[in-house]
Parts: sequence; structure tokens; C-alpha cells
Amino acid sequence: MMNKEQYIESLRKLKPIIYCNGERIESVVDHPMTRPHVNSAAMTYELACQPEYEDLMTVTSSLTGKKINRFTHIHQSTEDLVKKVKMLRMIGQKTGTCFQRCVGFDALNSTFIVTHKVDKECGTNYHQRFVEYMKYVQENDLMIAGSMTDVKGERSKKPGQQADPDLYVHIVERRDDGIVIRGAKAHQTGMVNSHEMLILPTTNLGPDDKDYAVACAVPVDAPGVIHIFGRQTNDQRRLQGDIDTGNAEYAIVGGETLTVLNDVFVPWERVFMCGEYQYAQEYVETFAAYHRQNYGGCKVGVADVIIGATAAMAEYNGVPNASHIKDKIIEMIHLAETMYNCSIACSAEGQKTLAGNYYVNTLLANTVKLNCTRFMYEISRLAHDVAGGFIATLPYEADYKSPVTGPYIEKYFAANPKVPTEHRIRMARLLENMTGGTALAESMHGAGSPQAMRVMLYRETNLEHKKSLAKKLAKIEE
Amino acid sequence: MMNKEQYIESLRKLKPIIYCNGERIESVVDHPMTRPHVNSAAMTYELACQPEYEDLMTVTSSLTGKKINRFTHIHQSTEDLVKKVKMLRMIGQKTGTCFQRCVGFDALNSTFIVTHKVDKECGTNYHQRFVEYMKYVQENDLMIAGSMTDVKGERSKKPGQQADPDLYVHIVERRDDGIVIRGAKAHQTGMVNSHEMLILPTTNLGPDDKDYAVACAVPVDAPGVIHIFGRQTNDQRRLQGDIDTGNAEYAIVGGETLTVLNDVFVPWERVFMCGEYQYAQEYVETFAAYHRQNYGGCKVGVADVIIGATAAMAEYNGVPNASHIKDKIIEMIHLAETMYNCSIACSAEGQKTLAGNYYVNTLLANTVKLNCTRFMYEISRLAHDVAGGFIATLPYEADYKSPVTGPYIEKYFAANPKVPTEHRIRMARLLENMTGGTALAESMHGAGSPQAMRVMLYRETNLEHKKSLAKKLAKIEE
Amino acid sequence: MMNKEQYIESLRKLKPIIYCNGERIESVVDHPMTRPHVNSAAMTYELACQPEYEDLMTVTSSLTGKKINRFTHIHQSTEDLVKKVKMLRMIGQKTGTCFQRCVGFDALNSTFIVTHKVDKECGTNYHQRFVEYMKYVQENDLMIAGSMTDVKGERSKKPGQQADPDLYVHIVERRDDGIVIRGAKAHQTGMVNSHEMLILPTTNLGPDDKDYAVACAVPVDAPGVIHIFGRQTNDQRRLQGDIDTGNAEYAIVGGETLTVLNDVFVPWERVFMCGEYQYAQEYVETFAAYHRQNYGGCKVGVADVIIGATAAMAEYNGVPNASHIKDKIIEMIHLAETMYNCSIACSAEGQKTLAGNYYVNTLLANTVKLNCTRFMYEISRLAHDVAGGFIATLPYEADYKSPVTGPYIEKYFAANPKVPTEHRIRMARLLENMTGGTALAESMHGAGSPQAMRVMLYRETNLEHKKSLAKKLAKIEE
Amino acid sequence: MMNKEQYIESLRKLKPIIYCNGERIESVVDHPMTRPHVNSAAMTYELACQPEYEDLMTVTSSLTGKKINRFTHIHQSTEDLVKKVKMLRMIGQKTGTCFQRCVGFDALNSTFIVTHKVDKECGTNYHQRFVEYMKYVQENDLMIAGSMTDVKGERSKKPGQQADPDLYVHIVERRDDGIVIRGAKAHQTGMVNSHEMLILPTTNLGPDDKDYAVACAVPVDAPGVIHIFGRQTNDQRRLQGDIDTGNAEYAIVGGETLTVLNDVFVPWERVFMCGEYQYAQEYVETFAAYHRQNYGGCKVGVADVIIGATAAMAEYNGVPNASHIKDKIIEMIHLAETMYNCSIACSAEGQKTLAGNYYVNTLLANTVKLNCTRFMYEISRLAHDVAGGFIATLPYEADYKSPVTGPYIEKYFAANPKVPTEHRIRMARLLENMTGGTALAESMHGAGSPQAMRVMLYRETNLEHKKSLAKKLAKIEE
Repeated sequence: MMNKEQYIESLRKLKPIIYCNGERIESVVDHPMTRPHVNSAAMTYELACQPEYEDLMTVTSSLTGKKINRFTHIHQSTEDLVKKVKMLRMIGQKTGTCFQRCVGFDALNSTFIVTHKVDKECGTNYHQRFVEYMKYVQENDLMIAGSMTDVKGERSKKPGQQADPDLYVHIVERRDDGIVIRGAKAHQTGMVNSHEMLILPTTNLGPDDKDYAVACAVPVDAPGVIHIFGRQTNDQRRLQGDIDTGNAEYAIVGGETLTVLNDVFVPWERVFMCGEYQYAQEYVETFAAYHRQNYGGCKVGVADVIIGATAAMAEYNGVPNASHIKDKIIEMIHLAETMYNCSIACSAEGQKTLAGNYYVNTLLANTVKLNCTRFMYEISRLAHDVAGGFIATLPYEADYKSPVTGPYIEKYFAANPKVPTEHRIRMARLLENMTGGTALAESMHGAGSPQAMRVMLYRETNLEHKKSLAKKLAKIEE
Repeated sequence: MMNKEQYIESLRKLKPIIYCNGERIESVVDHPMTRPHVNSAAMTYELACQPEYEDLMTVTSSLTGKKINRFTHIHQSTEDLVKKVKMLRMIGQKTGTCFQRCVGFDALNSTFIVTHKVDKECGTNYHQRFVEYMKYVQENDLMIAGSMTDVKGERSKKPGQQADPDLYVHIVERRDDGIVIRGAKAHQTGMVNSHEMLILPTTNLGPDDKDYAVACAVPVDAPGVIHIFGRQTNDQRRLQGDIDTGNAEYAIVGGETLTVLNDVFVPWERVFMCGEYQYAQEYVETFAAYHRQNYGGCKVGVADVIIGATAAMAEYNGVPNASHIKDKIIEMIHLAETMYNCSIACSAEGQKTLAGNYYVNTLLANTVKLNCTRFMYEISRLAHDVAGGFIATLPYEADYKSPVTGPYIEKYFAANPKVPTEHRIRMARLLENMTGGTALAESMHGAGSPQAMRVMLYRETNLEHKKSLAKKLAKIEE
Repeated sequence: MMNKEQYIESLRKLKPIIYCNGERIESVVDHPMTRPHVNSAAMTYELACQPEYEDLMTVTSSLTGKKINRFTHIHQSTEDLVKKVKMLRMIGQKTGTCFQRCVGFDALNSTFIVTHKVDKECGTNYHQRFVEYMKYVQENDLMIAGSMTDVKGERSKKPGQQADPDLYVHIVERRDDGIVIRGAKAHQTGMVNSHEMLILPTTNLGPDDKDYAVACAVPVDAPGVIHIFGRQTNDQRRLQGDIDTGNAEYAIVGGETLTVLNDVFVPWERVFMCGEYQYAQEYVETFAAYHRQNYGGCKVGVADVIIGATAAMAEYNGVPNASHIKDKIIEMIHLAETMYNCSIACSAEGQKTLAGNYYVNTLLANTVKLNCTRFMYEISRLAHDVAGGFIATLPYEADYKSPVTGPYIEKYFAANPKVPTEHRIRMARLLENMTGGTALAESMHGAGSPQAMRVMLYRETNLEHKKSLAKKLAKIEE
Repeated sequence: MMNKEQYIESLRKLKPIIYCNGERIESVVDHPMTRPHVNSAAMTYELACQPEYEDLMTVTSSLTGKKINRFTHIHQSTEDLVKKVKMLRMIGQKTGTCFQRCVGFDALNSTFIVTHKVDKECGTNYHQRFVEYMKYVQENDLMIAGSMTDVKGERSKKPGQQADPDLYVHIVERRDDGIVIRGAKAHQTGMVNSHEMLILPTTNLGPDDKDYAVACAVPVDAPGVIHIFGRQTNDQRRLQGDIDTGNAEYAIVGGETLTVLNDVFVPWERVFMCGEYQYAQEYVETFAAYHRQNYGGCKVGVADVIIGATAAMAEYNGVPNASHIKDKIIEMIHLAETMYNCSIACSAEGQKTLAGNYYVNTLLANTVKLNCTRFMYEISRLAHDVAGGFIATLPYEADYKSPVTGPYIEKYFAANPKVPTEHRIRMARLLENMTGGTALAESMHGAGSPQAMRVMLYRETNLEHKKSLAKKLAKIEE
């Protein structure tokens, strides 16, 4: 296992091509725009080395018998699934934001399941190949970016029907030594500070879409790979001071990229699906269920911080005991714990797969994320309510630090006399950071849009059984 | 273990004094107003004898090693807690209503915990006494009414401050052979068809309230006990036909009573608390948490039936595939499964107590019921939406069966030509039954009112920890 | 204008055929099941004779120059539309339920508009015929049942496509002296205590549906008319005592019927549409908009009573000042006034029609009722919350009045010592009556189901204009 | 009246001291950080000169008989109040953001009422003095910043109890020629591009707070006035390009300041309250009601743009007709029009004051803003849902314009082939701008926090009347 420093050092050795705001980022570790994202992911390495988190953060590999970072683990029990949720919540409490590494974690476990099934039914040998890759990942404690979401083009059309064939990643050449792929993946969380990406399909495919049925692992600095770094809310505040950015250490969300795959070569030992289109849907749904499981973990950790910040703001404002404020904080707690319950339940109700690893309850996992698309907004709304208009009109950090205007701000933004004005400003900025645009939109669309969950809820429910229950009670015989 | 018939027979042997609508009910088993409630509770006996439900419905007693009905069990693991939830959901699907027996179940497990603690700290011997009682309950497969809720008088005052000292059950005499109690318990679910009631305190108590700190077991037909049967929505429909009542077999909710304890004698071997006021609050909260756990079980079973009935109505109306209807059914599923998740999670996260049994996670258990006070209303609202105005204006069963008006109703309430009009009417009546007054109010107040859960959520949350997380990220040092 | 007594006397002269619970109701005025509905409608006559309500309840006829009851008025200004809303709210406060007479009121005003348009475009003479009818209605101060809703059969099919052609009211014969119609109208509010019904189409029609394009006035006791009285929540409580029914004087909702039209003859002077299918949709939408306008009037009056009852219950329970209770009452007020605002606004923004009367703003009128389908449920939910479990488990009136059980109930349901137990019980029963099944379902489906409003909101919004605003700001030029 | 150019020119003549990001802004008109705010306010001048908006934007002065900009008008009728709302909605549609000028408008009208009352009861002559000031404002078509919100210090304490007496603006000296005031006003909308500010109290005051009872007009560049410009979401994007800022022309919200009043002298002819503490509460509530009225105008205009942008995004993504998307857009329309209804209703129900101008219905005006604190968040949430994850991860404008990365972005963010990629990006950026942090927080706290409205709703409701209605129906006689 790597520690934080080793992880950072390992990133220095990679040479990914990253563009941001019209310029190339030479060192993802040193650049002020990407460093906070590196810090978030680094937390998954740092905590794994702390004895108090050993139980949650580390586990014995089912493949090698060695102690590994849980983020590279193939789940061996429902307890593993539950611990995943608790680990995510705990890290979310420490970063107050996305720490990115779960996407790859979920891609690994879903690939483990699907490769096993494809091999069994199609006589291929993807699974063993993938197991070898897993060992390599565990051995080197790699951070893997789970690369699912294609750019999708016109939403009402399938991959093969798009005006431009490249709007979904596809195989453009099959060679003796491997394949060549082209396309782009959007919303790539943690990509710039990962070691490799694990590419998988993003939608169900038909017989005409064979070339789109591709799964494979690619280093983030492989030839032909170009990363265009996404813009976040208030990103430029990172370039000046440490107050206004709110969460100076860990930024917001996952530092998403548009990652272009410009005829990238992948050797066969890194190819885990190649044309088996009929398994794409299951692949997508399996990955999605694992990934939706997470949101009652990490987002609840984030919500814990928002709740704490809101309670602190009430105190700083001098009204911690107003009954309506207490009531709002209770509501925030209730919403947060409800999301957590959903994640715990879909984990505790998980089951062993034919491949031998453990998989969450699909129906329940989809409720997790659907609740998240509502509750994180409501939690943020309540935080705004309690915090006060203050969070929308605060002066600039530079004005606070200026000898001309600073004293006025110091004087006039004092509230609870026991609390330094700076504390009040810092807390407001943290809340602003955590309840704004990018953070909310991620709660909405990460792991899929609400409609995707609704489709799954309908599909996974046995509505005929429910109807038969009702008919029996109503004494209706057909 | 008793089967359904034995249970019913056992009730015939009891002679409780029950009043209903100005008259005394001589046989709770045969009276049309109480029989449907007997049927609901009987389901807990019937299913325990069916092999397919053996795993959920039965268990090996930790006290006697014998196979017992789970409703008399002292939980031995988190798996037991999870199975309780699944059992409740499954039975709720079969009755479409409350089957009452969980209240006693929860009272037994909480008494097990509290008697152990009191003994340890006060040198009393309630626990062993209670264990003997438990064996008796298990041996005879008794249905126990959990009797907590006092009538409470003026809500802003403690028991000892009330204008009338009897507004909370209390000890009026301590004798050599036992105690004499007086007062009344309200909202007593399943009381008329239980064998015994297990009385426990309903609120936290102070040093002045010692006489109110009483727990004990009393047969439902003990001298001095009078039951006044509560009135339910549309109760009189049970007296005429089987369509309009909606759920003819199992009625609505739990057949609650006001149970008056008119100087009732209780022998010492049935007394489990007598004056230890300082444990009343923990007793109440323990019972409440166990009981709130249930609502994501039984009510989700009920919701399953409502969802099934709603989907069937859409089909009967001829519009099963309208997108807005499908969307509403998905929403109902989502809300139901979210409640279920909460119950599963608080069970899976349960812990062993000092007394040796397993107890749910208190914080999470309180979210279960708070969600229920919202979601069951919303589920009912959506059911009304999909079902149509029909459910509010349907003609009387007698008119449907009349040769004069019946043919008109038959003709004009036809919708989907493949569905008999009677099916449509029956399904509408079932929905009316399940989404109306008493059923909703029970979702609100059963296991305590929302404010009770909110108080617990606040108390069980570590807000200081959350504040410290926020301060660390905002770089605030105090 | 008639007063209350004259109205009741006028009903005695009619001989409608009404069936209820397997028997014929001979006198709608004297039968305990229908009398409370008569009382509600009678309020519209009684208040019109009280000087303090003269401004709201009466108006000068635009047709005759005489003082008339506003319920027979053709709106002459937006002020008239606003006063309609205020009148409805005021009466709702006095009955706590539907007083039925607005349906005919709205049917009259929409027929006024549509007949004018049809005449102008088709050269017919319906409008003058209808104006004569209006004078007759005003002169005799008639209560008119607005009869729109057909039974509809299979919801996915048009009238002419149904398995049974009678599932929508249609013309079966055209004669020299008039027409003969057949079919049935469902959910007919106030029908049994109206003088006449004004029949209009219920859906948009195509060229194949000409026979379904029919509007006409029919006395409620015309030959061939049969009324089957719908069943309401807890209806049988009216037969015994005055407490348990909750609102003994005015019952629940509107006493809806299934009204069968068994080859009913209508003379030409009462026929206002006969085959002009292309105006059916506009007719329906016009009526619907007028009718949806009402819900922020009458239902807010009802909500005012619920809010008052809830506040009184809190006082009776001894906790009027608990902050969480105050907060819930504020929420109820907020929801009620928001509905009221919608009705006031769609009235104040009304416009003069080509026919010369005033019509509400369609877009805004549709928001009224859509809010109502949510807010009345939420108001009821909050009322349940504050009132306590009490409302679901109260004993029977007969037990309260019994010398055996009455004293126990008196003693044990005492709360605030300043309040007689009976007051507490009465208030709880009123709340039960107003927040239960039929009352809620009416808030959902009266004036159309939510989806009907949503379709109108989409149609009435200028989405292209909104898009162009956005494009301009985003500097998008096409 | 001034036109847009004259307004901008008039600002050049003022020399306010403004700090922003550590530097002084020399020209509010030319600085890229403030110019968009100038543009928004300029819209109130520009449209007043366009014939098509003459009816909404202009009016005849009740003081001078001349044609004036409505923003300087003293309302003479409920029609004036309604037109105010329509004007605000219309301008909001054109700017997509706050145009600031309503704050002063409301301050003027409330000062008109309160000065009249104070004079009448205290024998002062503030009203005539204020009328003269009004003529000056109208004559010069001035933009007035309404300056109410003090910085407030510890929220649980009154002005006179604060640790620092300056935490509320107060009189520090009374001189022959005027008064000297000290303190600071926070959240000052439109301040930097106003001509003068109209200061009024922010809370109810007691006899000890006499020096805090001060109202007066002060030029924005008066000696001793220092403005510290607040920081907004993504403000720095204005410094680079025109795409990423989303709404390049008009920015976000109102460009709020912390305005410090450093011993500012005010001559007597500009003082409108000086010590009459007992009128402070009414002053605050009057201003607040006027100001809350606005939110169903301006914010609905903003919502219109969000709805249009959302509909356009659905089209650009290639799924304009998906039923779930249509349903979400309908919901947005419903919420927006409900807010609008509230504003129209509180205006139409306004009344003439003793001072002679018209004032909104206070109860109804408070529902407007309370709905806004919920609905604008929900509208934004739905916009995020429909728009897609895209809005959170879009690349930088500089990368889009770069020859290296631009072509990839152009290719891979294409969706609907009929729509240029740039349009899709621009529309996403507009949505991001309008649904993010500052914009949402303003919907929450502008015109007061939700709790302020709730207190008013409770106070303005006649709860006793509602209780009496319920008692009458329940047949409870006291």
C-alpha cells in the first residue's frame, strides 16, 4: 500500500496531457487548480495508514492474501459492502467533498462480475485476464478512474445512429497485439490524478453497436489521451488566498474532465470486453448500482460537515437555541441519516454473485441516489436559511486582509462577541462552497440522472406480485 | 406454538369486558366489529405453521431451546432484528393492515433490557422474574398487548402535577402479595384479542413520580379491567356485506381501545418495575426505538398492497401505460422502499445490550417512523390521484346488489372491457379503506408523534463532532 | 330570491328518483343521509338574505336589472370574479364542507360564452335561447347542478370508440320538439337537492362524436332520470347521534350521485348544443377554468375551519404554545393563503369575453386546483400531527353517552382542565370528518384530476417566448 | 425621465468610494465587475423610454402631474400595485437577474406612509419634508438604494444591548443643521450604481433605542460613506470572455455592498425620522410587505428565463419530448405561476392608507416571499435535472476557444445535430449562472429570512376567528 506521500510521488512520474483555462497543466500535483483534488484522493491513501481506520480502510486481498487498500478490493461479504459505505462517510467527513476513488472501485467490482459471466456464456477468457489486472492494481495500490460516461451526442439516438460515430467510445481497429479505440468520456471524476482509467460501456447496445461494446484499462498518460479539465464554481478563488475558496485543502467535487481518446492503443491483456454487446446493459446497471450505493456514504459525510457548519453558524450568529433553527438542523440530520440508511440497507441486503464477489441489492441501491438528488438540495436550502444572507454578500478576502477596509469588515461582521469575525467569515465561505452550483449538480447527476433510477425502480419491482396481494384482499378472483 | 385455530380458541376462554357502540361485546371472536382484528392477529399464528415462512416466523428460544413464534422471541443477533422487519413486511402484505402483535414483542424486549439494568444498579430481582414470565409467554405462545400510552391529561404537565392523579397509571397500594394499580391506557392496539397486557411507563419521571414508575403483566380479563373499543373509519360497513368495507377480512389498523385499570391487583411475580422512576425515560426510549423500527416493515407491507391496488386500478381504468401514472407508481415504490431501507439499516446496525439481547440503532430507528409520518400520506395521495374520483363517490354495496339499481351500476362503472365492474369497485373500496382517516392517523401517531422522533434525532446526534469537522475544513482553530 | 325555507320548500315539490343503500329516498329534505347536504346548499340561500353578506351574496342581474343571488349571475367584471372567490371562502367557513352550488354557476357562465361563439360561427341560435333560460333561473333562484363528468368507460378511448356507446351521454333521437339523450353522469355534486341539471360535454370530440356534443337543461325529476347516491366516509354516523359525525349539520363534500339518463327527452328550448363537436374542448376547458378558480375560495374556507380546529385542539390538549405546534399552524395558514392567492389572482386577471361576460385567466386558474391537490393533503396531515392519535381511536358516541362507560371516558379523556372533555371529543370528531377519505379525494379530483391541470399549464404557457428570453441573455442567435 | 445613457452618464458624475478585491473601483460604469450591475439597473431607464412598455414603466406623478418613471412613483391604486408586479416580471425576463431599483421604490412608499403617521401622532413635520424629497427624486429620476438591513451583531440582542453600539446605524450627534450618523448597512442591493440611499431602521425598537430610530437620505458619495463590494458566485469569470459568466450583460443578483457610514452628516431636510422609536416596527413591516410583494414579479421573470433555458437545453440535448422532461417543465411553470399569483393577489387586495397611497395586503404579501424561498430552489433543482451533468463539468471558455482543445470540445459536446455546440455550452452556462449559490441565497434571504415571514403570517391571521368557526360547526358552546 502507498501512503499519501508515495501516492503524490507516483503522480509525478506520470505525464498526462491536461488542459485547463487555455493552458497545459504540467504538474497536477503542484498546480493550484488541481492540487486540492489531489489532496482529496490522497486522503484515501493517508487514512489507510492510520491504525484507527485500519478496519475500514484496509482488508485482506481475496486474490493475494495480502493487506490492501479497500479501494482495490473485490467485495467478499455484505460486511465488506457495509464497510465500504462507512468508509465513504468517514472520508467525506474529512474532505467535505468527493475523494474520487470509488468510481474505479465500482468499475473493478462490476467488471469482475461481467467478465465472469461473458466468459461462461461466450467461452472468452476476459475474467482471468482481469484477475491478473486486479492483482497488479492491488500490488501497486493504483488509483483507477472508472470511465463510463460517454459524451452521448443526441440523447434520443443509439451509439450507432449518431451523426458522428465517435460520440461513443468505440473500437476503430482490431490488431494482433490489441485494439485501437476512439471517442471521449465526459465527467471523468478524479481522472487527472489517477494512474489508469478503466473504460466500460455507458448504455445498452444492440447488434449494430458491437464496436461500442468495449471495456479496457488505459494509463492516463497513454499516447492519444488528452484531458480537458472542467470548470467548477468559484474555481479561481483557489488562486488567491485560502478563505474565499471555502475548503482550501480539498476543493469541490471531483475535478471532472472531458477525456479524449484519440486512437488509443490497448494491448489485449488490458481488454476486458470486445464486441459482446449483449452484456452492455447488465454491465452498466451493475456498475450503476454499486455506484449509487455510495451516495448514502460519501454525501452523508459531506452532509455531516454541512450540518456541523450550519450549527456553528447559528452559534456564531448568536442564536443557537432558537427553536426554528434547531428544528431545521434536526431536519437536516433526518435527511442525512435517511440517505445513510438506504446505503446501509442495500449493502446489508447484498448477495454473492456467480463470480464470487458481493453485489448490492439493486432495487434498494437505486433509492439511495434518488433520495440524494432531492435531499442534498434540501439540506443546502436549509443551510442557507440558517446561515443568513451573509453567505451571499460577503466581501472579498483581499478586502478583509486590506488595512483600509479590513478593520471595517472586522468591526461590522462581528456577531457573537465570543467568536472572532474571521471564524464567522470562514464558516460562511465553507458553507457557500459546499451548497452551491457544482456541488449540487453533482448530487443530481453523479452515478446517473434521476430518471435512470426511476427506470430501474420500476424494472426491479415485482408489480405483479403487489397486484396479486391487493386482489386477494379485495377478494378479486380472475 | 399455537396455530390460527388454537389462537382463536384460546381467546374464547378469556372473558374480557369490552364495550363498543353502547353495548358489551360478549365474544371478541364472533362479533363482526372485532372479528376482522382477530383475523389480522391470527395471521401471526397461521403463518408460523407454514413451512415456507418458517425461517421468518419461527426461531429457537434463547431461554428454552424450543422452537417458538418469533413474536415471543428475545432478539439474539442483528440477523434476528432484520428478520423481524422482513416478517412484518411479509405479514403486512397479507393483511393490508396492522396485525398488532409487534407492540407486545417490543415491550418484552425492552423490559428484558431495562429489568437487567435496574437489577444491576439497584440490587432488585426483576430480571429473573421477567425471564420466568418470558418462558411462560413462549411456552403458551401468548399474544401480549404492549401497554405504554397513558391518557396523559394536560400535555404540558408531568404525571404528578395533573389535576387528576389517575391520568397516568400508578400504584395505589403496595401489598404483601402484590400491587394495586389505577389509571387508563389509551390507543391500546390489539388489546381485545390479546391474552395479557404488559404495562410500562409512558414518559420520563422525576422523584415525585415514583408511584408512576410501574411495569407489570396483567391478563386482559383481570378484575377491574374494562376495555372501551375505539371507533374506526367506516367501521359500520362491516355489518353489511363484504365489498364496501374494502378489506373485509382484516379491517383497518389495530382495533385500539381505551383500557381502564380500575384498582387492578398484580401479584409480585408479574411486577417488573415498582418505583425506579429514574429508569422510566430509558425504558420509554428503548421501547420506542424497537417500535419505530417496525414501521418500515409492516407499513411497507401495507404500502405494497396500496401500490398493487393502484397499479391494478390504472389497468382497470384502461390507462396502465400513461407515463404520468407510471411515474406516480414509481414514486410510491421509491417512498416505500426508502422506509424499508430505514428499518433494515437500523436493524443491521443494531448492537448487543448488556442484558444479552440485541437492540436497534436508536438514531436510525427514529428516522424510520419520521419518514413514515410523511410518506404514507404521500403514498395515499398518489393512490387517490391514480385511482380517480371514483373512490370518493362510489354507490353503496346494497345498491350494487339491488336488482333495480345494480344493472345501471354494472353498466356505467364498466371501464376496461376485460375487467368485470365488480373488480373495479372492489379495488376502489380496498384503496379507500387503506388510504383514509384511521389508517393515515395511525401512520402519524403510532409509536409516537413526529416531535418525539425529532427530539430523539437531536439527542442521538453528535453535533459537536459535526461542528469540529466543519471547523477543521474551514481552518478555524479555537 | 328564495330564502333558506323557501329553498327547502321548493325541493319538497320535486319528485326525483333517488336510491341510497338499497332503498329509495322519498324526501331528500327529511332523510338523515341527504338532509345535511340540503343544509349546505341552503346556506347559499340563507346568507343571501342577510344584510351583512349582501355585497358578496347578491348582485344586480345584467339580464333583468333585478337583485339576484350571485350564484345565478353572469359575471360582469373582474370584481365579480373576485367576489365569487370571497363568497365561496366565506360560505366554506360556515359549512366546513362543499355547498355544491358553484358547479351550476360555472356551467351557466361557460355555456353563456360557448353558445355565443357557436352561434357566431355556425349561425345557430343557442345563445338567445340560453339567455332566456338564464332569466328563468334567476327569476326562480334555481339551484342548478353542473353536469359534466361522464362515466368515461375505458380511459384511453374516445366516446365513439367505447365498447358501449352509452358510456358518454349522447343524443339517441332528434325529434321535432326536442332531443332524447342517454347515458350517465358520475360524481354529480349537489344533484339530489338541485332543481335542474345543466348537461355539458366532458371531453374534446372528433367528427365521429357528433352525437356526444350535447348541452341541455333537464329537471332533476324529469322522466327517465335516476339518481344513485354515492357513499361517503363514515356516512352511517349520521343515523346515530350528533357527535361522531363531526359536522352534523353539513356532512362531507357534496353528496355526489351517479345520475342515469335513461332516454330522457329535452325540448328544444332547453338544448344549448347539439352536434357542434368542434366546440366541445373549449367548452370543457372554459367550464374547468371557472371551476378550478373556486378551489382557492371554498377549500380555503374549509381550511380555515381545519386550522381553527387544530389550534383549538392544541389548546384543549394543553400545549397551545409549543413552538413546533405554532410552526405547524403557521404552515397551514401559509398553504391556505397561497391557494387563496391563486384564486384571487386568476380572478383579478380575468378578461371580458366576446359574449360580454368575464372569464378567469386560464393559466392561473389551473395552478389553483393543482396546488389544492397537494396542499389540502398537507394541511390535513399537519392537522393530524397536532391533534394527536386521539382522532383515530376515540370511543363511540354511544359509549360516551352510556352511564356505564361514559364516566370513564369523561375522566380519562380530560386534558386541559379548563376544557370539558366533550369539547375535546367534538373537536377531534370535526377534524376527523374534515381530513379523511372523501374530503381528501374531493380535493384531488373535484374540477378534474391533476394531470388535466398539467396539460393546461403546458398548453397555456408560451414556452417559445421563454426560450427566446433565455437565448437572448445567453447571446445565442439562430 | 432619464434614458439609459443619461443614467450611465449621471453615475459618472458621482464619486463614491468603492472597494472590491483589495482595490478601489474608480468608475463603477467602466469596471468589469460592476458594469453588469449598472446594465441591469439601466434597464429600468431604458424600457421606460420604449413606447411598448410605457404603460407599465411610466405613470403620472401624483405630486407633480408629470410623467415619471414608475420606480419613483407613490402608488395611487391597486392597479398601480398590480402594474408594479407586472413591470418587475417583465424586466426580470429581460435581465435574468435583479435590477435593484425596487428596494428604493419600496423604501419611498413606506416612508411616505410612516412619516404621515408620525406627524399626525407626534406633531412633527417629516411628511411634507419627505414629499419635497420625493419631488426631487421624481424630477431627477434618481435611483435610490433602500438601506434597511443593519449588520445586526449578536442576533439575540437589541441594538442598544450590543457589545459595540455601532452594530446598528444610529445618531451620534444632533446639530442645528442636521444629524451625524454612524454604523453600517449590509447586503445593500444596487448601492454602487445608485444616486442616493434612503436609510431606515431594521428592527423594532424600545425606549432605550431612540438613537437607532433614524431615517434619512444620503448621497452615495457623501463624505464618510465607504462601500465594500460583495463577492458573488463565479464573479471572476467576468474578467475573461463572455461565455463562462453565463449572463455576461447583467451578472447575478444585485451587486450587494457592505456600506459603512463613518460619521456621516445629514442635513435636516433629508431626515425623515429622528428618535420616534415606537414607529420602527411598523416602518420595518410596511417596507417588508412592499418588498416581499416583489418576489412573485422579478423572480418569476427570472424563473421564466430558467424555464426557457431548461426547455431549450432539452431540445439541444435531443430529448424535448420525453414525458418526464415535459413533466418537470410543467412543474417549473406551476411553481413560477403560483408565486406570481401570490404577488398579483396581495396587490389586487391592497388598500388605501391614511397617507393616501396604496399598500399591499400584508398577510398575502408574506406568503409570496415564503413560497419563493422554496420554489426558486425547486425550480433550480429541476433545471439541473433536465439540463444534465454537463452544467457542472463544462470546460473553460479559454479551452473552447483554443485551437488545441477547441476542436475536441466542438466535436464531443455536439448533441442535437441541428444545434451548434456553442449554443449548448452558452445555454448551460446561463443555467449555471441562474441556479447557483448567490442567486439561490438571494431567493432565501432577500426581503427577509423565512422566519420573518412566518412571524408575520401568524400575527396577521385571525386565529380566534378560525377557532370560533370550528367551534360552531362542532357545536361547542363556551
